[in-house]
Amino acid sequence: MPEKLLVGPEPDNASLYTPIEALNQDGEPVALWAVTEKLLTIFFNGKEVVTTMNIGDHPECLAVGFLLNQRMLEPDDEIVSIRHDAEDGTVFVRTGDSVHVDGGEPKKRIHTSGCAVATMFGDVLESLDNIRLDPTPKLKISDLYNAVLTIKGLPTLHQKTGSVHRCVLCEENRPIIYMEDVGRHNALDKIAGYMRLHGIGRENKYIYCTGRLTSEVVIKTVIMGLPILVSRSGFSAMGIELARKTGLTLIGRCRGRTFQLLSAPERVVYDLPA
Amino acid sequence: MPEKLLVGPEPDNASLYTPIEALNQDGEPVALWAVTEKLLTIFFNGKEVVTTMNIGDHPECLAVGFLLNQRMLEPDDEIVSIRHDAEDGTVFVRTGDSVHVDGGEPKKRIHTSGCAVATMFGDVLESLDNIRLDPTPKLKISDLYNAVLTIKGLPTLHQKTGSVHRCVLCEENRPIIYMEDVGRHNALDKIAGYMRLHGIGRENKYIYCTGRLTSEVVIKTVIMGLPILVSRSGFSAMGIELARKTGLTLIGRCRGRTFQLLSAPERVVYDLPA
Repeated sequence: MPEKLLVGPEPDNASLYTPIEALNQDGEPVALWAVTEKLLTIFFNGKEVVTTMNIGDHPECLAVGFLLNQRMLEPDDEIVSIRHDAEDGTVFVRTGDSVHVDGGEPKKRIHTSGCAVATMFGDVLESLDNIRLDPTPKLKISDLYNAVLTIKGLPTLHQKTGSVHRCVLCEENRPIIYMEDVGRHNALDKIAGYMRLHGIGRENKYIYCTGRLTSEVVIKTVIMGLPILVSRSGFSAMGIELARKTGLTLIGRCRGRTFQLLSAPERVVYDLPA
Repeated sequence: MPEKLLVGPEPDNASLYTPIEALNQDGEPVALWAVTEKLLTIFFNGKEVVTTMNIGDHPECLAVGFLLNQRMLEPDDEIVSIRHDAEDGTVFVRTGDSVHVDGGEPKKRIHTSGCAVATMFGDVLESLDNIRLDPTPKLKISDLYNAVLTIKGLPTLHQKTGSVHRCVLCEENRPIIYMEDVGRHNALDKIAGYMRLHGIGRENKYIYCTGRLTSEVVIKTVIMGLPILVSRSGFSAMGIELARKTGLTLIGRCRGRTFQLLSAPERVVYDLPA
C-alpha cells in the first residue's frame, strides 16, 4: 500500500465475492467471481431508517456515513454506541442526547414516499441552500494525475469481480481512504463514516470516484464539506447545477490526461504544459 | 429506424439534455451536453407510492411499469386512467376496482424503511418463490449478435450526453422497444409500461441492456415474465442466485462476440462456429 493509505480495497477478502461456474461464447466452462451483495438495515436511536444493498465490508462506516450525509446525524453529535449484527444484517447507531429505553426520536426521519431518492430531495436538498463551500482550497493538475496513477496501480475487488464502483479520498497527490461498493453512494458514505469514526479532517482533501456525477453524489460530497469531486465517468445536468450553486469544483471524464471541468474552475491550478 | 422498432432513443429531443459550458484539461472552453434528471412522483389509486429520478421521456410508461414490476398493479387489473402533470412532476394511475372519491387503497403499499431497495426485497422478493419461467423459449447466438449489432448502429441520447443506460426489448434478431434512462431500473420499467399500454406480448422476446445484472434488474425481468436477460456489463452474486432460482437465462459481459452465460444455459442455441 502507498504511504498514508489508511484503508484500501480487499480483493483477497473471500466474504466479498462468490465463485461462479459459467459458460463462455463457445459453450466452454469458465470460472468467475461475482461480487456479493448484502442487505444492511440501519437503525438510528432505535428507529429503522433505511435498508441498503452493499458489499458488506465496513458496516459501521456505512451506517454512520449514511446518517451524516442524510443530515440525520450532525458532525458534533456524540455517538455513544454502534452495534453491528452480521447475522441479522443490522447496524444500530445511538447518539448521546437521545438514549432512552423507548429508543428516543431521531432529529429527522426518512418518511413518506418509500424511496431514498425522494428523501435526498426533500429535507437534504433544502439544507444545501445554506452551504457555500470554502473557495480557498486549490487542486494542482499534477497532484490529481499522480493520485489517479497511484489509485490505478492498486489491486482491487473490481479487478476480480467487476460491477463495483470505486471512491477515494485523496490528499494532494495521494489516496488516503479507498472504498469499493456496488453502489457509488455507499462507497462515499463509507468514506464519510470512516472520516468521522477515525477523526480524519477534510483539509486539503478531495474525492476521486468512478461513478457518474449525478445529484446524489454531488449532494453527499457537499454535505461532507469537501470542495472538489472528480470522476472518470460523466455527469448529469442536475449534478452540475447543484455543484455550481454550492461552489463545488466538479471534474468529469477524468481519463488519462484529459478531463472536463464543469464548475468552480478557480480552484484548479493548471501547473502542467498544455 | 430498423423494421419493427416501436420506440427508440430521442437524441434530438431537446427536453432531455442541457447545454453545458466547461473547460478541458488545458483550460480551453468546451461545449457539452448533460442529460436532464427530473423527479417524478407516482401515485396509485390516490396514494403516493414513490418518487423516482429519471430523464422525463415516457412518464406514463414509467409509472405503469414501476407499479407492475413492484406487483402493486397486476397484469389483469383494468387501468381506468393515467394522468401526467409535467409541471408538478406527478403521474396518477387508477385501476377499475378502487376508484373512490377518497382515493381507495392500493393492494400493497411501499412502506417502512424509506428505500426502494428494501421494498424490492420485502414483498417482491417473496413473490418470486412461486415463479418458474417457461423453459421452452430459445435464443440463437446469431440472433443475439444481429440484434446487438442493430442496436449499436442507432443514434442515442447516450452518444450525446453520456451517463444514461440503455435497455432494449428484442424479438429474435431485432430490437423492438429501446429505452434510455439515468437509472437502468427506470429504463426497464418504461419497457414494461410500454408493453402493457400498447398490448405488446412477451413471446419470443428478451432484454438486452447496458447496466449491471444486479438483483434489482433480475427481479424486474422475472416479474415481466421474460426468460432471457443479456447485458454488456457484469453481474452480482445475488443477481445470479435469483436468476438460477427462477430459471432466468442470464448472460453478462456480452461484448463483440464474447459473453458469459451464467444461468439456465439450456435456452441458448450455439448456432455459430466456435
